[in-house]
Amino acid sequence: MGRRIRETRNSQQISQETLADMAGVDRSHMGFIERGKRDIRVSTLFKIARALKMPPGNLLDF
Amino acid sequence: MGRRIRETRNSQQISQETLADMAGVDRSHMGFIERGKRDIRVSTLFKIARALKMPPGNLLDF
Repeated sequence: MGRRIRETRNSQQISQETLADMAGVDRSHMGFIERGKRDIRVSTLFKIARALKMPPGNLLDF
Repeated sequence: MGRRIRETRNSQQISQETLADMAGVDRSHMGFIERGKRDIRVSTLFKIARALKMPPGNLLDF
């Protein structure tokens, strides 16, 4: 999931800090999320997906 | 999300208890999840999706 968030963010040319601010997520927390080091809650996934204007399911790799 | 989990579970004629056991989730916790009373972690969403043989994104309504 973290890798998809990072890829999507980069494709939209948004910095990690900007995405964190847009999603209302702590900046250091966002770093851990992108590195796959956090088991985030679904509500956080929704906030990040909304900030990236993507369906949340698209950020999940399974 | 809870409603989708419930709908999917019912369409597969699986009881809430059986789904909880299959997903390795506490039975009472599953009840709260289905009623939308829990902000579950993505890992829990994956466990439930795997038990229902569905892509996790399909259980997310947005």
